[in-house]
Amino acid sequence: MSETPPSERTRVKRHPERGAYDRATIDPILDEALFCHVGYVTDGRPRVIPTIHVRVDDTLYIHGSNASRTLRTIKDGEEVCIVTTLLDGLVLARSAFMHSMNYRSVVVYGPAREVTEREEKWMAQKALVDHVCAGRSDQVRMPTEDELRQTTILAVSLEAASANLRTGPPKDDEADYDLPVWAGVLPMATVPQTPQDDPRLNPGLEPPPNVAEYRRLPA
Amino acid sequence: MSETPPSERTRVKRHPERGAYDRATIDPILDEALFCHVGYVTDGRPRVIPTIHVRVDDTLYIHGSNASRTLRTIKDGEEVCIVTTLLDGLVLARSAFMHSMNYRSVVVYGPAREVTEREEKWMAQKALVDHVCAGRSDQVRMPTEDELRQTTILAVSLEAASANLRTGPPKDDEADYDLPVWAGVLPMATVPQTPQDDPRLNPGLEPPPNVAEYRRLPA
Repeated sequence: MSETPPSERTRVKRHPERGAYDRATIDPILDEALFCHVGYVTDGRPRVIPTIHVRVDDTLYIHGSNASRTLRTIKDGEEVCIVTTLLDGLVLARSAFMHSMNYRSVVVYGPAREVTEREEKWMAQKALVDHVCAGRSDQVRMPTEDELRQTTILAVSLEAASANLRTGPPKDDEADYDLPVWAGVLPMATVPQTPQDDPRLNPGLEPPPNVAEYRRLPA
Repeated sequence: MSETPPSERTRVKRHPERGAYDRATIDPILDEALFCHVGYVTDGRPRVIPTIHVRVDDTLYIHGSNASRTLRTIKDGEEVCIVTTLLDGLVLARSAFMHSMNYRSVVVYGPAREVTEREEKWMAQKALVDHVCAGRSDQVRMPTEDELRQTTILAVSLEAASANLRTGPPKDDEADYDLPVWAGVLPMATVPQTPQDDPRLNPGLEPPPNVAEYRRLPA
């Protein structure tokens, strides 16, 4: 697992103890997160959109349709800032000031490269489907050549990636520990619920195990 | 509830049927979401950071510390793009191409105004704590004047806000409905887990009902 040395821009300044640049920290966050937010500049102004991503080795792929104004704007080598954030818990301190959240976040900077080579595009499309639901690409009809053409996929190198995270209990001012206030962490989890059949589902079809027993992180 | 007419910039172009500009749609998304992503431009480049927000009437407040590089950069009238996205489910279609997610997202554009007036700053700080955990501001030590000075709060008007959402089952190509593939939605929910006491908690303190029976959306 390679280590990405922090550049001036990716270095975590606000809480240096919360920053991490090693791929052993970064990759599991990207792999667990179901979607990301992509920031870019258009006419000098900031724009941010949510979209689906997948990490394949040292590359982050993000997905869109050709109709998307966003991906049309950023596909020509434009600089992007991609962030994904997993909320792990509410940090409930004894003072309002010390309230916080436990989270794991990754920021990736870089020029976006449009994926045009058919082989890479197919691989990324397959990886995107399997990122959402592991094993799904083996169960569904894969894209036709025309569908592949209608899909825009952008690639960003993980070279300039960094992770930010906070874990653990609240940190209160020493004087506040005597206050009669409950303090601790309320963990939060993204939990799959019962699958809902498509109303047009043909009789006799049941959710496969990768849906019925969905786990965000396959072992 | 006022309606925000769509400007050229906020108009939802990609899937016009997914766009909404009425505050009856926008406000509950902002109120349910625990955090947001703030995009801005620095040295011509995009930056995106996650932070906590709260909506109070027609204003979105975002929170930071004075030490934060981000909030230092954007507090002087800088244009920001704030996005918050709630994931509601994985849309598992019969073809890879038609896979999607059910989500509710809000985008807010506008110049950020630094909150400097003490009364508004106090109100926003209280609202931020209660946004994370309803009623918490009545239970904890509220900020001293010094803590208030150490906090940077930015305000953005909800004038240029829009919502994007997708709901419902997958939409497949007609020919694909006969494939022997299970299709439907796997709903996803953000679920509070069992509260974890601070290891330094004084004996006899129990999580209050607003923590022990935490609900994201108070009735």
